[in-house]
Amino acid sequence: MKEQFLYEIKKLLKQRFRDSQEQRVLNSYDAMNRMILPDAVAEPVTEEEVASIIMLCAGFRVPVVPRGAGCGFSGGALPVRGGLVLNLSRMNDIVIDRDNLVAEAGPGAVTADVHKAAEAVNLFYPPDPASMAVSTIGGNIAENAGGPRAAKYGVTKEYVLALRVVLADGSIRTFGRPLRKDVAGYNLAPLFVGSEGTLGVITRVWLKLLPKPEAALSSILSFDTALSAARAISAIVAAGLNPSRLEIMDSFCIQSLKEAGHNIDGDPGAVLMVEVDGDAVQLPGQLNRIREVAKKHGLLSFRQAGNEAENEKIWELRRSLSPIINSFGDTKMNEDVVVPRSGIPELFSFVEQLRKKSGLTIVCFGHAGDGNIHVNVMYNAATPDIEEKVETTLHQLFEKVVAMGGSISGEHGIGIAKQRFMRHQFSEAELALMRRIKQVFDPLNLLNPGKILPEPEKTE
Amino acid sequence: MKEQFLYEIKKLLKQRFRDSQEQRVLNSYDAMNRMILPDAVAEPVTEEEVASIIMLCAGFRVPVVPRGAGCGFSGGALPVRGGLVLNLSRMNDIVIDRDNLVAEAGPGAVTADVHKAAEAVNLFYPPDPASMAVSTIGGNIAENAGGPRAAKYGVTKEYVLALRVVLADGSIRTFGRPLRKDVAGYNLAPLFVGSEGTLGVITRVWLKLLPKPEAALSSILSFDTALSAARAISAIVAAGLNPSRLEIMDSFCIQSLKEAGHNIDGDPGAVLMVEVDGDAVQLPGQLNRIREVAKKHGLLSFRQAGNEAENEKIWELRRSLSPIINSFGDTKMNEDVVVPRSGIPELFSFVEQLRKKSGLTIVCFGHAGDGNIHVNVMYNAATPDIEEKVETTLHQLFEKVVAMGGSISGEHGIGIAKQRFMRHQFSEAELALMRRIKQVFDPLNLLNPGKILPEPEKTE
Repeated sequence: MKEQFLYEIKKLLKQRFRDSQEQRVLNSYDAMNRMILPDAVAEPVTEEEVASIIMLCAGFRVPVVPRGAGCGFSGGALPVRGGLVLNLSRMNDIVIDRDNLVAEAGPGAVTADVHKAAEAVNLFYPPDPASMAVSTIGGNIAENAGGPRAAKYGVTKEYVLALRVVLADGSIRTFGRPLRKDVAGYNLAPLFVGSEGTLGVITRVWLKLLPKPEAALSSILSFDTALSAARAISAIVAAGLNPSRLEIMDSFCIQSLKEAGHNIDGDPGAVLMVEVDGDAVQLPGQLNRIREVAKKHGLLSFRQAGNEAENEKIWELRRSLSPIINSFGDTKMNEDVVVPRSGIPELFSFVEQLRKKSGLTIVCFGHAGDGNIHVNVMYNAATPDIEEKVETTLHQLFEKVVAMGGSISGEHGIGIAKQRFMRHQFSEAELALMRRIKQVFDPLNLLNPGKILPEPEKTE
Repeated sequence: MKEQFLYEIKKLLKQRFRDSQEQRVLNSYDAMNRMILPDAVAEPVTEEEVASIIMLCAGFRVPVVPRGAGCGFSGGALPVRGGLVLNLSRMNDIVIDRDNLVAEAGPGAVTADVHKAAEAVNLFYPPDPASMAVSTIGGNIAENAGGPRAAKYGVTKEYVLALRVVLADGSIRTFGRPLRKDVAGYNLAPLFVGSEGTLGVITRVWLKLLPKPEAALSSILSFDTALSAARAISAIVAAGLNPSRLEIMDSFCIQSLKEAGHNIDGDPGAVLMVEVDGDAVQLPGQLNRIREVAKKHGLLSFRQAGNEAENEKIWELRRSLSPIINSFGDTKMNEDVVVPRSGIPELFSFVEQLRKKSGLTIVCFGHAGDGNIHVNVMYNAATPDIEEKVETTLHQLFEKVVAMGGSISGEHGIGIAKQRFMRHQFSEAELALMRRIKQVFDPLNLLNPGKILPEPEKTE
């Protein structure tokens, strides 16, 4: 970084400009488990500061990488071309507009704090990524985060009413309005959702809230095989039973949980966690209808939560899965493929084939109710020739998923983790169009460069 | 149109290329009541034909204006620069994917037919514009149509999963996928929703369906004044009572309905039509809670529908309003402003001020539950100096609405009807960004040219 740039940015941010080794390390990773050091870190507290930083960076051609809590799985927050990490975690205020059912927040507001603020006035912000205790709302929007409740309520993009964004030239613009309806001009706010900070820096968000459902009731269903459970999921969806959460875990997950001391009845091939929400009196009946459907597909046991604490325990168990399966290897390729919900049995059969063909441990769990399955290839990196085998297996997985009409990512985003798989889903012409959009918003390619889009020429 | 172009397009479309005076007239209007003749009309039946037409038009620099049923209010379907109207009404097939809760349709599919197809398998497509008996799904998407059920269920954009679009260069591209989750690459499908055919021609759509609510129950509430009714609306919303439809009509509407022979009890200042949906047993209780809130705000009477036929009758009454108020003048400026829902009383007070100041008849009705009010300025065009007075009044209305954090259009779109008001809502820099987006998709400016964006220089 040039002297003049350092002089200007230190004058602007004082001690909130940080280039100590410690601070660089703290801002060098996300949940992808790869460390890339930024040259420095900025901790703005206002939109105007963000705008000034972006203008300085544009003038000195310094890449800028926005960062929330650094818990993404795709490397979206990693400064792959160096430059400045813009740590937005101080911009974390939350204002609830009770009368209009809207939450307004800074990008650094923690997702769980948005939940709490809404629920304190009997409102409801549905998106619930597993990392919600630490993840930020700005990061959730940048990656279009999902979560179990997407089964019924959809993902983050369905709740973003408006965004204030600092563009690459330092201008501060608002896209959308916190209204239920607005059709004036082009619909640009959704373009920023899932754009991973490559089109602008989100500095303010307005989210749609819903009335809080009166109650929720969960249950655990165990099945003889993963394929049975997958068939039950498709049947539950097709029957229009609309569970608020519908998650699966396979026998590898069950084994990990048992080894970690959790109590799981019997020796099932797979377990579903199912929640319904709405009017309290209706819920046992709804769960019963789900149970009836499941009985036709190899249901072994059904256990309903007796109270709210038991309900919450089921979902804590679910959120603990991602770290707990690390017992299967020191390295995890955590993919989050999506298929049409009727295709879940086919996906599970295909993963079983991949296991047999490759000999790899592949652990599946996730948001079955919306077709989004976490397929985790677990291995020890020191094993000879393993990386190549894993890579081949992943390409086979993505090829299959796209052929089924699915997507290579449901909620983790592309970042750097999945760039090399983008051509399974998109043609060169489609990628070229995305590059033209990037060019409109960021002609100098300084906003989180090197993410999402693979290089124009086929070099892989 | 050049001879060579005519030769090529006739070869392509045979008798589905039409340039008779009759066919040009039939494709020259929408609900804006302005006639602009196209040079000719094309009636494609496949995406490949659409692509061939677009390529021909690009080669010969012929403007192309996509058209559904021609029932928009903003002139979106009018060929203001001449050229070819692309009448898509023959591409109207509908396929319901029951297992995945998805409707797939041609752009010419009639909205009500999508409703019927979904409901036949116990699914539900919520958006219900008043014109749904004739409007097409392609037109609904191009204008991002709303309707009463937007109060609970949101507008068209919230149901568009994926679109196939013919771009300006004739390439056929799919944006999005019919999945509940997909975060691979930029989120481009929403950009086409509400873009009025200016970025591409929609040739195939995939829509999200919901399980059909078990039942719906409606009621009519009358109030002493429009302001009381407006306050009741804001209170109902703030109480989180989440009606599936919540509509208002003012005393002018009531007068028109009475003159047309409809039975309205007493002489109220305004009427609310309220529907709740969900589990049948819960509905009377939900309506009662709404009634309790309304009692605090000048409720005069409350009547609940006794059966499904009475329920439907209430909504037929509502749909009849737009044409019936024509008794107040031969010319109608039908605006569809939006304000935050807590601001509805303030909007009604402001409209009352406008009435007094201008002496104009201003009739209000509409989708109060989502903040979207149809403000109709009614007049006889032959009245001396009236147009200027109407124009001044409209500018005052839009200025107020935007100052309240609202929008100049909630569901009708901009087209040519509201271009001159766009600068109330958008800065020059914001309009310039929209022009750059248009430039990316349509560099020759042949796709529905002259719509949405006002001319770059201030010439008004």
